[in-house]
Amino acid sequence: MRRTMKARRDSPRKESMLVIHVHVRVKTECVEAFKQASLENARDSVREPGIARFDVVQQQDDPTRFVLVEVYRDVDATAQHKETAHYARWRDTVAPMMAEPRRSVKFDNVFPDNAEW
Amino acid sequence: MRRTMKARRDSPRKESMLVIHVHVRVKTECVEAFKQASLENARDSVREPGIARFDVVQQQDDPTRFVLVEVYRDVDATAQHKETAHYARWRDTVAPMMAEPRRSVKFDNVFPDNAEW
Repeated sequence: MRRTMKARRDSPRKESMLVIHVHVRVKTECVEAFKQASLENARDSVREPGIARFDVVQQQDDPTRFVLVEVYRDVDATAQHKETAHYARWRDTVAPMMAEPRRSVKFDNVFPDNAEW
Repeated sequence: MRRTMKARRDSPRKESMLVIHVHVRVKTECVEAFKQASLENARDSVREPGIARFDVVQQQDDPTRFVLVEVYRDVDATAQHKETAHYARWRDTVAPMMAEPRRSVKFDNVFPDNAEW
């Protein structure tokens, strides 16, 4: 945490938003329970100061597939998210629902401008 | 167009947001040109009344890969987007830049609420 704070203070440049798409496939019988747990997690996550968006979408042609579209204001915010109680609760709740391991893809922001998120 | 307007007028229910992720891989030498063309298209697209978001992100571990995260207020808005001059310009400009065919995945919105987009 001390390292994190220091890194922030020493950095004069505005860091770029970091976008993470988390691809999830759940067991068929877990679709509604996953949706409910992810709604709760998303509602808490968007209250974190380092999180600009935390969208949850469900694939139309395969409702067992979801993507969490997570937009962080900087890299530190991703670490801080992992330390929250709501993240831990979500992670433990959905673990047995997974049909396959989650896959995360990291992106740099191109549009909109960082200030517009 | 008449059909579109009619469908909107006759529909009493609030339609759900439609989210489309367009996965793109461009030729290495086209990364910057694709980014520029997509920025222009995104700036115009977010001015369409039926479009809530039109984000462009670039994959960190493979900068030739992009995702366009397009959020439409209803299905009609996707058709209307395809009729715009900026979409036609983007489509024609980026066509020779593609390393492989684009892949679109359609999603239903789970979070945030439709009104919050």
